[in-house]
Order: sequence, then C-alpha cells, then structure tokens
Amino acid sequence: MVRHSRSIDLTQVSEWQEGSLRRFQDYLVAEEPLEIRVSGAPLTVTMRTPGHDLELAAGFLFTEGFIQKREQIAGLEEGKAENQQAGGNLVYVELAGTEFEREHMQRNFFVASSCGICGKASIDAIRMRGIPPPNPEFRFDPDMLCALPDKLRAAQTIFGRTGGLHAAGLFSANGELLAVREDVGRHNAVDKIVGWALLEGRLPLSDSALMVSGRGGFEIIQKALVAGIPLVASVSAPSGLAVRLARELGLTLVGFLRGRRFLIYSGEQRLAAPAVKN
Amino acid sequence: MVRHSRSIDLTQVSEWQEGSLRRFQDYLVAEEPLEIRVSGAPLTVTMRTPGHDLELAAGFLFTEGFIQKREQIAGLEEGKAENQQAGGNLVYVELAGTEFEREHMQRNFFVASSCGICGKASIDAIRMRGIPPPNPEFRFDPDMLCALPDKLRAAQTIFGRTGGLHAAGLFSANGELLAVREDVGRHNAVDKIVGWALLEGRLPLSDSALMVSGRGGFEIIQKALVAGIPLVASVSAPSGLAVRLARELGLTLVGFLRGRRFLIYSGEQRLAAPAVKN
Repeated sequence: MVRHSRSIDLTQVSEWQEGSLRRFQDYLVAEEPLEIRVSGAPLTVTMRTPGHDLELAAGFLFTEGFIQKREQIAGLEEGKAENQQAGGNLVYVELAGTEFEREHMQRNFFVASSCGICGKASIDAIRMRGIPPPNPEFRFDPDMLCALPDKLRAAQTIFGRTGGLHAAGLFSANGELLAVREDVGRHNAVDKIVGWALLEGRLPLSDSALMVSGRGGFEIIQKALVAGIPLVASVSAPSGLAVRLARELGLTLVGFLRGRRFLIYSGEQRLAAPAVKN
Repeated sequence: MVRHSRSIDLTQVSEWQEGSLRRFQDYLVAEEPLEIRVSGAPLTVTMRTPGHDLELAAGFLFTEGFIQKREQIAGLEEGKAENQQAGGNLVYVELAGTEFEREHMQRNFFVASSCGICGKASIDAIRMRGIPPPNPEFRFDPDMLCALPDKLRAAQTIFGRTGGLHAAGLFSANGELLAVREDVGRHNAVDKIVGWALLEGRLPLSDSALMVSGRGGFEIIQKALVAGIPLVASVSAPSGLAVRLARELGLTLVGFLRGRRFLIYSGEQRLAAPAVKN
C-alpha cells in the first residue's frame, strides 16, 4: 500500500463479479490517529482522515466547549520535527491567558461528551453552556435545499476516488458553497468546517446552512448549535434525541433530503414553505 | 415526541415534496447516553440506541481489552432503582478478582482507543494485546456472501421503521444468521454482537462472518479481531488503515458488497474463489 496523497492511499484489490476475479489498483480513504496536544500535554486522540488538521483541532476545541473565541488560541501549529517522526499526526495548541487548567478542562470534556445519563440531561448540558438559539430571521428556499446534495457531492474530492467517507458542506443563504470538508468521522468533518470558520473569523455562522452526508445525530446538531448554524440538512435519518435538541434550541432540522423531497423535523418556518395541504 | 419502544421514538414530521407540505407521524431511532459503571464508578459514557445494554457493556469491556474472558464479569445488571430514575441508561458491572485497578484500566483504555500517533503504532498496539490471527481454515462461499446484505436487511427490525441506524449481523459458515444488533453507533452494534457471544459462551467466533451496514473502519476490524472473527464484509468502503490491519493480522476484508459483486481487500483465500482471469 502506498500513500497517494495525505488523504488517500493506493493499493491492489480483487474484484469478484459473477464468479470471476479481477485485480486492479484502487484508492482508499486514509485514516490515521490525530493527537491534539494542548500546552505540551495530550488532550485527546481522534481517528481522522489527514488534511485540514489545524482546522480540526480548532473546531474540536470550540465545539466541545474548551474555548469560546478565536483569541484564546495563542498558538496552533503542526510543523515541528517531532511531528514529522509521528507521520504528521500531531497538532500543537497554545491557549492564551491563565485560565487553562487541564483537570478542569478534562472534567469539562467528560461532561461535554457524556452529558449526564439521560437525553434530557444531555440537552440541559448544552443549554448550560449558554448557547443562544440560532438566527430566527434566517430563511432558506426549499428548491435551493433540494440542490444541496448534488452540490456537496460535486465538491467532494476524496469521495469520488474512494467512495468511503463523510462530508460536511457549508452553504450561504443563497445556496452558494462556502466550504466542504471530508473525513472518515462525520464529527470530524463538521469540526473541520467549524474550525475553518473560527480561524477565518466567520463565527457565528448565523446566515449559513450545513449539509452533512451521513445521519443527523445528536453530536452533529450540538456542534452546529455551538457554531450558531440555523439549519442542518442530511440525506439520512436523524435520531430522536437530535430532533428533541433541535426543537428545544430552535434549529431547523431536515432529513431524507433526496431528489425533490425531504422531511422537516424542526424549525419549519425557516423554509419559507407554502400553506400546508391536509 | 413519545417513546414507542425502548429503541424507537414517535413524533410528528412534515414532508415537503414538489412544493407541497404534508404532516404525519413518523418513527425515529432512539439515541440516549449509556453509562457503564464498573465497581461503582463510571468508566465511560457512550451515545447508543437503548436495547441489549448488558451485551453492549460486556462487549465494550471485552473488545477494548478491559477483560479477556467471561469469568471476569462477576456481576452485570441494569435493574436498580437508581437506574429507573436515570431512564434505564446505567449498566452496573462487577469484576471478579483483585486485578481491577481503575487508573491502570483507564490508562489502558486511553492506549486502546488512541493507539499511539501513527497508523503503524495503532496496529502495533493491537498486536501487543496478543490477539492471534483468526482461523486460517475458515472458508466462505462467494455466492453465499452475496446473499448476506438482503438477509441482514430483512432481520433489521428497527431500521425498517426509522431508516436511521447501523446494523451488525453474525453469520455461520453456512450463511445462517446467528444474531443481529442495531444501533446509532456502528461500533456499538458490533460491541452488542460480541457481548452477546461473550455472555453466551460462544467466543472466539472462529467459524463466523460479520456483516456491517456501514463502512469497515479501523475500529470495526479491531473489534472483530479481538472476537476471533475471520471475515468482515460491508456494503461500503474500508479505510486504508482498516485494510492494513486486516492484512497484517490475517482477517478477510470485503467491501462494496452489492448485488453480485464485491471487492476483496485482504484474505482472498477464505473466499474459495476460482482462478484469476487476467
């Protein structure tokens, strides 16, 4: 197996079809662990597709509640010699100010990632982080929404070769693609988008829609809310808890977006929809 | 939103189709946090679909390397009053013997889940757990393999209603379905299968094939190897690291299993394939 690019491996595979075998070279999506190191000590390790690692680290710190604004990141780099030995799988973060205490941080992280032991506690934990309801004035045209899956697919550079990963795309209120990121982990794809926005000074994303290729699970909705995104759409089904969170915090959640049809689970008013037929 | 069963919620949704809106009641897959509590203290919290929670806890402890055999579980229950208040989202585990030390355990877990900071270290960490190569004598008929996706789909009771979750199915060498488990998290579906096998005294699963509905990522292959499963098939693409792990430890890995075609990434000899045409 050889590394084709940072995000893609190349290897020989065998194809079985109707009893015949054929061998050829095929592309695989790369998957490697990334260690996020804060003030010299490891904070977390995530399995991710290499590429946009600084954005991933920044987005992770932001959506998981370790930092609240861009200015708290005093240093962010991946270029050290030690990292070359580690295959480029390290990101170094320095935080500004004296407020950083690792134990407190890791305790917060446990809370952020576990969120109590029932769905209600999970939603309350997000409320307690003081996240405001996303932009109530945002509107998105339903016809434009139907075009997002094709736009996202067209922009996926890795998927076209490997068929093997998730994508997240950020769109303006006019349906223009602002950014697309791909990863073996759907949470990572969203963190890369949010990290990009954070580093570009574009947060909160009050006038943007997020399209994800996989399911709309609880953690995706949580990350979107932290970034101020008012609308999340996916081609697949959300979970019950994701729908409850979207409803309680006022996010528009769309699922099964395929062709000229979709389901609205929450926040219908943002879709500027016509009168209901019943 | 009402709870339809432990694994399914029921709620009103709006369907947009060609400019018309229609409202109806729809099923959603349930997602709730599960806390696994070992000897009275929390070990981990995972977002999962309620159902088969004891199997999930047992499988997690086993595939992540906290325990090596059934006998190490001295107690496993979910029936306490405290748990009713927590919405049934707690599993209590008591481990036998005196070897259980939380700090050691959590350090091991960090290693198990992070596995160093490059792909090679990730694979080495699994080798170091002393996992033997899976059964070299196992064979599986390619025609029978092509029938697995339909068998798995037919056995998915929750997916049919919600369209929103992952499944893992365990099959005998004759293609007979032994167990199927569903979950919003694909790792959890596999842990539930392995936990079932552990509690039933069926480990190692040396004569079984595992079919998963999602991607064949690194962690799925790792869990299959720990359970001794010689063949893993999925309808989608594996990652490069998953393929490297499968090749190094000798597991047969099949992807893009659709209709009468599939790709073999590793361990072709188990598929009793005809001569190669080239």
